[in-house]
Amino acid sequence: MRILLTNDDGIGAPGIQALWQALSQIAEVIVVAPDTERSATSQAITVHHPIRVDQYCIEKPPICAWRVGGTPTDCVKIAIEALMTDKPDIVVSGINLGSNLGTDVLYSGTVSAAIEGSLFGITSIAVSLDTWQDADFSPAANYTAELVKMLEHKKLPPGTLLNVNVPAIAAEQIAGIAITKLGVRQYANTFERRQDPRGRLYYWMGGELVDNDNDPDTDIVAVKRNKISITPIHFDLTNYGLMKSLNEWNIDKIGL
Amino acid sequence: MRILLTNDDGIGAPGIQALWQALSQIAEVIVVAPDTERSATSQAITVHHPIRVDQYCIEKPPICAWRVGGTPTDCVKIAIEALMTDKPDIVVSGINLGSNLGTDVLYSGTVSAAIEGSLFGITSIAVSLDTWQDADFSPAANYTAELVKMLEHKKLPPGTLLNVNVPAIAAEQIAGIAITKLGVRQYANTFERRQDPRGRLYYWMGGELVDNDNDPDTDIVAVKRNKISITPIHFDLTNYGLMKSLNEWNIDKIGL
Repeated sequence: MRILLTNDDGIGAPGIQALWQALSQIAEVIVVAPDTERSATSQAITVHHPIRVDQYCIEKPPICAWRVGGTPTDCVKIAIEALMTDKPDIVVSGINLGSNLGTDVLYSGTVSAAIEGSLFGITSIAVSLDTWQDADFSPAANYTAELVKMLEHKKLPPGTLLNVNVPAIAAEQIAGIAITKLGVRQYANTFERRQDPRGRLYYWMGGELVDNDNDPDTDIVAVKRNKISITPIHFDLTNYGLMKSLNEWNIDKIGL
Repeated sequence: MRILLTNDDGIGAPGIQALWQALSQIAEVIVVAPDTERSATSQAITVHHPIRVDQYCIEKPPICAWRVGGTPTDCVKIAIEALMTDKPDIVVSGINLGSNLGTDVLYSGTVSAAIEGSLFGITSIAVSLDTWQDADFSPAANYTAELVKMLEHKKLPPGTLLNVNVPAIAAEQIAGIAITKLGVRQYANTFERRQDPRGRLYYWMGGELVDNDNDPDTDIVAVKRNKISITPIHFDLTNYGLMKSLNEWNIDKIGL
């Protein structure tokens, strides 16, 4: 099995290193990841600047990877179309430091890299750990390796991928696995207004997470209940139901 | 009616200027747009750098707008949460120079800005013109104004928006309006490998559009047939059908 591994925290991040080690036990792993952190870059691609690519090596085990001056989606594209001689059997993105839950997946570079893999027709998963600090990636890395072994035999339908979120607790405390839907994430007081030393205005995007009343079968509630959340994701943005309604609007009668 | 207008080509781009003029005839228009071109930034948000905001004024008519050092999605967020005193009635994103069709909408900053508007519960549309050069934005701008007038009375269901693509031809040549689904866009020879004067490797992302065999009811075919394409878009990425199948996989039996 040949795995393409990428992330959005950058190639030096502990999350991808842990996954690199764990997946190397079960497959050939080709790492193609951003040179620096590219969090919250969604499915952005680099079309107005050249993209640098160079080798990145670690000592233990002595292996090399591709370091890319671009976004997670750039990494998947360039890996498959320019760097790898054969297509990977699976694309794995992560492990992200911080969960990718609910509507927040729309902004996620980690999830977008897996969407890109799926656009190439390749089985793809995104993995995130629900913490911002003192992360122990081993339970998530080991679980991902098990899931990847399962995916070698059980195929996902075309145009779908899995978004996996792991609670940041010891493996023996994990309360099971839940197949979930995406919940809703909202933030309050998102922008903080400041002045620089020259009196000019700027803002920081931040915000506090609002404790939404999410359904019990959402990813958000599953992780809160110490479960690993697996959400099947698609990326067909057409709202087919609304197509019919719009035809009844006589929208085509608007003057040009 | 109060319209929030943004784009991804930057506040000085002719496409947003044309729309600014056309929409000002029918509503109060608040322009909050990126300082420079931010094409292909998808739904990226700026969380690791401060976001600059300043005034941008034009002489005819003498009006001012907000210029934002961020992505199209940043613009919608900061407009609604920090800059505007009241929520807009509608968010309009565009007019983009170049179509946003099929799977390419996943990378589009223009469409993502409208998705962000919809996330706030606001009626939102994205408008693109199918050309890269010698653009005459007036037919698209005038049609958008008519569509916005219609949307003042006919509400879209929550979590949906409209993606509008206009062929780059004279208004009288437009062959009508089609309610469409997203097609598939693929590119060949995407990466061009080059060396810089110091012998170091870099790539350009480019590629030639593959003429996919798209269904007649796709956005891609509609625009090819000189029609204005209107695709209803949603952003619920959960694949509900696959949730059931995954539960049957006994995925929760994987060892932790």
